[in-house]
Amino acid sequence: MSQIRHALTVKREDDFAKWYQEVISAADLAEESGVRGCMVIKPWGYGIWERIQRLMDDRIKAAGVQNCYFPLFIPLANFTREAEHVEGFAKEMAVVTHHRLIADGKGGLIPDPAAKLEEPLVVRPTSETIIGDAMARWVQSWRDLPLLTNQWANVVRWEMRTRMFLRTSEFLWQEGHTAHENREQALEETHRALEMYRACAEDDLALPVIAGEKPENERFPGAVETWSIEAMMQDGKALQAGTSHYLGTNFAHAAGIQYQDREGAQQYCHTTSWGVSTRLIGGVIMTHGDDDGLRVPPAIAPQQIVIIPMLREAPEDAELIAYCAELRVALAGQSALGERLRILLDTKPGKAAAKRWDWVRKGAPVIIEVGPRDMAEGKLAVLRRDRLWNTANGKPAFTYPAQGEFVSGAGALLEDIQQSLFDEARARRDANITRGITEWQAVVDHFEKGGKYPGWVEVEWAKPTGAALDTVVEKLKAVKLTIRNVPRDAQAATGACIFTGEPAVERILVARAY
Amino acid sequence: MSQIRHALTVKREDDFAKWYQEVISAADLAEESGVRGCMVIKPWGYGIWERIQRLMDDRIKAAGVQNCYFPLFIPLANFTREAEHVEGFAKEMAVVTHHRLIADGKGGLIPDPAAKLEEPLVVRPTSETIIGDAMARWVQSWRDLPLLTNQWANVVRWEMRTRMFLRTSEFLWQEGHTAHENREQALEETHRALEMYRACAEDDLALPVIAGEKPENERFPGAVETWSIEAMMQDGKALQAGTSHYLGTNFAHAAGIQYQDREGAQQYCHTTSWGVSTRLIGGVIMTHGDDDGLRVPPAIAPQQIVIIPMLREAPEDAELIAYCAELRVALAGQSALGERLRILLDTKPGKAAAKRWDWVRKGAPVIIEVGPRDMAEGKLAVLRRDRLWNTANGKPAFTYPAQGEFVSGAGALLEDIQQSLFDEARARRDANITRGITEWQAVVDHFEKGGKYPGWVEVEWAKPTGAALDTVVEKLKAVKLTIRNVPRDAQAATGACIFTGEPAVERILVARAY
Repeated sequence: MSQIRHALTVKREDDFAKWYQEVISAADLAEESGVRGCMVIKPWGYGIWERIQRLMDDRIKAAGVQNCYFPLFIPLANFTREAEHVEGFAKEMAVVTHHRLIADGKGGLIPDPAAKLEEPLVVRPTSETIIGDAMARWVQSWRDLPLLTNQWANVVRWEMRTRMFLRTSEFLWQEGHTAHENREQALEETHRALEMYRACAEDDLALPVIAGEKPENERFPGAVETWSIEAMMQDGKALQAGTSHYLGTNFAHAAGIQYQDREGAQQYCHTTSWGVSTRLIGGVIMTHGDDDGLRVPPAIAPQQIVIIPMLREAPEDAELIAYCAELRVALAGQSALGERLRILLDTKPGKAAAKRWDWVRKGAPVIIEVGPRDMAEGKLAVLRRDRLWNTANGKPAFTYPAQGEFVSGAGALLEDIQQSLFDEARARRDANITRGITEWQAVVDHFEKGGKYPGWVEVEWAKPTGAALDTVVEKLKAVKLTIRNVPRDAQAATGACIFTGEPAVERILVARAY
Repeated sequence: MSQIRHALTVKREDDFAKWYQEVISAADLAEESGVRGCMVIKPWGYGIWERIQRLMDDRIKAAGVQNCYFPLFIPLANFTREAEHVEGFAKEMAVVTHHRLIADGKGGLIPDPAAKLEEPLVVRPTSETIIGDAMARWVQSWRDLPLLTNQWANVVRWEMRTRMFLRTSEFLWQEGHTAHENREQALEETHRALEMYRACAEDDLALPVIAGEKPENERFPGAVETWSIEAMMQDGKALQAGTSHYLGTNFAHAAGIQYQDREGAQQYCHTTSWGVSTRLIGGVIMTHGDDDGLRVPPAIAPQQIVIIPMLREAPEDAELIAYCAELRVALAGQSALGERLRILLDTKPGKAAAKRWDWVRKGAPVIIEVGPRDMAEGKLAVLRRDRLWNTANGKPAFTYPAQGEFVSGAGALLEDIQQSLFDEARARRDANITRGITEWQAVVDHFEKGGKYPGWVEVEWAKPTGAALDTVVEKLKAVKLTIRNVPRDAQAATGACIFTGEPAVERILVARAY
């Protein structure tokens, strides 16, 4: 009965990984660059990133954090000062060794042996060590604290297996770096950043997340505490979507970030760092995408409403385009989610239906088609990307409101789409978190035999450390599981540790992950 | 009689280069990072860059150009395809040769010999060659043209002598890259970008510039035509503030950017590229700075009005702060230059007078001080940064408007400051361009004996090429001169070439330059 023909060739349920790649290509978000592990972010993908940047940057600035820019290159020596940190990153660092090329005599080029750097430079994988140097210069007294900085930058981690947006050798991110007088204030900032990430993920990206602390084995190299927000993808796997680290005085000791306290004594600062990256776009795809392509939440959509005039390459087109241009202006005067609407009038050559499907694949929240008859009747053919199909007849679920009515309700419509996408993702996420399992074997069975998308399991544990934790991690690894975090808002533990039977002290989320 | 005490230790007329460095430090714009040739851009400096970015990006988007992001790393092979291009950049390229570090056994780290890249990667000095690869993938038919892309990115050129903002190994910029069907359309885009730069420089940065074509010897490596905007600094030297290149089919041949034309034949695209960088901030400093520090044009000031309550660390402070907060809200509701005003309420600890001088050095366009008595009388003490001194009595030129009057006039005041800074710079620039010199020796005398700041000279020439041009360039170089450009809007040539006596064909600007 259903006539539904989806706009992609691969369905999520058939091959989620392949579907993910197809969405990226069909929505024209990004592509492989030919440079190992580096992607080209195309206009629609970069437009989404610009929206995320804008909204996150507003939140960062509202917290009194100031943007700066620090060098791309970090001297090798900076990395030798914090042992855990270098161990965590040394294996995947791009190293600059020369500053000139010369002809190789065979028509090619080679690094000039006469232009070898005395000390190689690392392309930043993260900037704690170079920003630590700056903090050491900038902080003298307690009056200089807190020092709240952030940068938007590219970083490089030489990943062996890459995947667009999720794990690329070069990626774009923001990294906040702050210095404080004491542990309490640094922890407060760690949690402020975490909460900012939760709010941005949920309110702007419509990604429901669970905020919590990472177990010891998943900490950022050099951190005392690492907190994360974790999002559930449609295949039930977890995506770490942002992290916030309390670094104690580790980096302050490494870089000499000291201040004179209120009593005149020299103290080491307590520092934090926190970051989110272009990985968030991968999270948006795997949370909101469907078998027709991407669905972009209105808050981060570069264009929220796309108007497609049904052009016939005839003289009447001019009148229709003028009518649509007026509609665009009327809509651009409306607001949603605290901002003016972003409207595109798509007058590129091509059939309206083909263009409609382009915008469906790209995930524009609302698509409007206007033909000469619609113009005459003062009506519009409106498609909500999040409710694309009329399941009764298998056709696209157009509605036909009068123009004035649509314009005045456009802001509310977009806000409803934003909320609907979030609600849908949250309902799915909540339905796929299993609680109450108390035996390890039942956890294994849940993931090995519990269907295709077993989701997450919340269990209780005794929070082992050191070698005891290693044993647990190995046990999990054997069935491809990881501990995502200790949810901040989980209920208290009441039973026994699922790994050891000891009295449990907290709840953890266990899942497969990206 | 005068009591004027300037806020810097070095005056422009005493040592312009040293003054420049002092402004950067006194205005807290940037500092050396400890990494060779790389600077740290501090919050006030980065805030100015963010404003420039925002205003330029609006202009870029308004022209239908779409932002993308391309890889930081470029394979060596890409550079071998365009001979002039690689010759222009090979001497200053940072080269990545390894992707891992290992311990050197002496407590340090070295690039892991086992992790040497098969093909070294260059850290982009500019992106024509990597974006060319993408264009070759994206362009098939004339329907795909014009292709209009831009990226905001960091680039690296291993400069031997660096100077903050003007010439750093790493710098931030935007680079536009476009592909077109033919020469005419590509030239039209070259000029559109040039005109966009002129408008942004003059309207946003208040930098009067002269737009024109660079002579052959100053072309971008691989370009057919290079156009620039040139600004005059207060020492009379020229700063190339932006360039726009018509690349012909050179890069299209190198990367294989071909399209099927309307008749079905394969053609090579004509491409352009154009860029401005953080160098613009150096131009703002050397154009608008004075002996008290920086003066930031309101359009690019991160904060346009700074309110300083005169706090006494007493209980009455709370009432004063509340009053100033209300003032802040009232001012933030006003607009100037098409945007809401940006207002900072500075409640940091410290004496009001000391804070005033901090903001003078930073160049906030308007500084307001509010004490308990001002609050009681409903008045404000207002300082215009561009007219800081009362020359009659040598004191800061405060005015004392009523609050309501100030608020309603704040937008107009800022627009007046913007215009005044531009007018001042333009008048100085125009007064320092000498025309009418017809003998080469008179040019030499003008620069060698014509006072400290000889400015620019506009002369006529016969537009020599090849070896004849080399002779001219050597002649200029001997007295430290360069040809800046052939002004787009100059009068036609009517006399003889100043170098050869042949009939002149156009006018050129000759100057010392950064």
